[in-house]
Amino acid sequence: MTRPFNFSAGPATLPEEVLQQAAAEMLDWHGSGMGVMEMSHRGKEFISIAEQAEADLREILSIPASYKVLFMQGGAIAQNAILPMNLSRGKRADYIITGSWSQKSAKEARKYCEVHVAASNEGDHHTTLPDYDSWKISDNAAYVHVCSNETIHGVEMHELPDLSTLGTQAPLVIDCSSHIVSRPIDWSRVGVAYAGAQKNIGPAGLTLVIIREDLIGHALAITPSAFDYRIVADNASMYNTPPTYPWYLAGLVFQWIKRQREGDLTGLAAIEARNATKAQLFYDYVDQSGYYINKVATNCRSRMNIPFFLPDDQLNEAFLAGAKAQGLLQLKGHKSVGGMRASLYNAMPVAGVEALLAYMKDFAATHG
Amino acid sequence: MTRPFNFSAGPATLPEEVLQQAAAEMLDWHGSGMGVMEMSHRGKEFISIAEQAEADLREILSIPASYKVLFMQGGAIAQNAILPMNLSRGKRADYIITGSWSQKSAKEARKYCEVHVAASNEGDHHTTLPDYDSWKISDNAAYVHVCSNETIHGVEMHELPDLSTLGTQAPLVIDCSSHIVSRPIDWSRVGVAYAGAQKNIGPAGLTLVIIREDLIGHALAITPSAFDYRIVADNASMYNTPPTYPWYLAGLVFQWIKRQREGDLTGLAAIEARNATKAQLFYDYVDQSGYYINKVATNCRSRMNIPFFLPDDQLNEAFLAGAKAQGLLQLKGHKSVGGMRASLYNAMPVAGVEALLAYMKDFAATHG
Repeated sequence: MTRPFNFSAGPATLPEEVLQQAAAEMLDWHGSGMGVMEMSHRGKEFISIAEQAEADLREILSIPASYKVLFMQGGAIAQNAILPMNLSRGKRADYIITGSWSQKSAKEARKYCEVHVAASNEGDHHTTLPDYDSWKISDNAAYVHVCSNETIHGVEMHELPDLSTLGTQAPLVIDCSSHIVSRPIDWSRVGVAYAGAQKNIGPAGLTLVIIREDLIGHALAITPSAFDYRIVADNASMYNTPPTYPWYLAGLVFQWIKRQREGDLTGLAAIEARNATKAQLFYDYVDQSGYYINKVATNCRSRMNIPFFLPDDQLNEAFLAGAKAQGLLQLKGHKSVGGMRASLYNAMPVAGVEALLAYMKDFAATHG
Repeated sequence: MTRPFNFSAGPATLPEEVLQQAAAEMLDWHGSGMGVMEMSHRGKEFISIAEQAEADLREILSIPASYKVLFMQGGAIAQNAILPMNLSRGKRADYIITGSWSQKSAKEARKYCEVHVAASNEGDHHTTLPDYDSWKISDNAAYVHVCSNETIHGVEMHELPDLSTLGTQAPLVIDCSSHIVSRPIDWSRVGVAYAGAQKNIGPAGLTLVIIREDLIGHALAITPSAFDYRIVADNASMYNTPPTYPWYLAGLVFQWIKRQREGDLTGLAAIEARNATKAQLFYDYVDQSGYYINKVATNCRSRMNIPFFLPDDQLNEAFLAGAKAQGLLQLKGHKSVGGMRASLYNAMPVAGVEALLAYMKDFAATHG
């Protein structure tokens, strides 16, 4: 019997073979006599786990050698403060508002620097993506911040903006928490990418920061040492004890990504193709159903997080109860948006989407 | 065959039955169809795990209802900044120096407030505990900070100071990372206790802050929201996504503590008695060996972390290699102190100490 399909927005479903490996190695990692949780982070066993995870991530995302990978704590919400602490340097920072998460980021940044909202989709209830040409970038912005996939509103940037064409040298900062390692990143357009791990990477409690080296070393004096990118980078993410078990789990997920095959495609290319297939299956059905509704503009619909609505909110409880009975879990939408949300992260197989769609068709037929 | 005995100072050995339970529940927690890592932190399954863990910790440590328990991230090193951000209120803070960790705390606090060193054992190379009567507490200190167990130097406060007898109303703050849940805490003497989890509680990546309610709500304006005790408390430690798996593991460890029996003693009392026995076995042998040396004054020797030295550093490698061959792991001392260190946390059985002592006797007989 297969496990239920878990559509949680995060923490989220993980590949079954990753969990099986973690369970098998729980008491004794590779004959070391220790479980991974029990290892000193400075011992050769954990160092080998940590270095392999970073090497695999670099390979998967083709991260240039001029970028550092930091393994931190506190999630994207902590980065909302840590980022301006490290990057604002007394200058103004530009934020693009595309949903709840970018809004939250901009609000927190105001504690540390002047914030300029250079574009916003608030007038469209966060269902569109402001044309890149329309962004009003500040003359001397320290950086330009975007959330490249809005987990709550389901708005994704399918191509990152090239800021150089907008007349600025400011680095682009992307909060890519909910779509990292779901598709490639064009590093020529990105100065900093950060992501909480609890969607596509592994357990909550690990945060990745991938940063171009020249952007490191400018922290405000009030920055906690544990969150100063310079100190974190110089200590290979071990200035404070890192979240060793989440780091290990992330490494297992990276190895799982590398093993994926889809036709002639391998690794991240296979993952991306599968994600595109899953999202298309879902949106195509919703659009032609005449029953379910997705309100996001077609050019920026997220492959990862799909909010959708039944024709009548009174049916929500029945929909969720029926889904759960079919082994389709955690479909309730975020409270700020309502309705339903299906998160189709890397670890969600096509079969999970098919099972969900079959249920949705039945439900629409019964209640339509 | 038993597992090797792992004397790491942290991350550290965990109870075998806790790891077995975690492995068994990895793919399906209590029939939910999800592993704990895959659960939304806002779902009823994880909420029940989180609440049970807090209730068990409150029971084990007899935490008064007027104290909040916060489940945070970043470890004690992050708290070195987060604490003064939340508690200093523009006033001076007093720090007691008893080893590397309290030194580090005082240094970081200087970013956020004036710091007064009210007592120090630096003149004794961190091998003593300054008499409480000798502490020079500031007139209007925001708080008095101690590290109640110095993991590197092996200095432990076996009784916490009663600051009211020193003529101050300032709250006592204890960094108890490396001896929390090894013994009771006298809350009448403590305003804030904080601890990284990776010694006695569970995996790295979880930090506990236990704080008297009246001390919450005074954060500096520059405090990141994710680390503002008021925001963390008001959101039941879920303002940002908490480290859910480490939180769950901590809960399994708390249940393990509650199950412990030692003669007529149960729970934490049994744990404390066992810890006292283990430490006494070890110190008694070292003191009478005429071979091994521990330099810490007898009134403040740590039960948890015991630094010791061979008569000749040239023998260190042979000692470590022989120990490893006997299944006695991670005994190398911290680089700043040298020699050896045996950490005898809760999860180290008496049999582990006996095995280590048997090896030490053999080694002394062979190399003495």
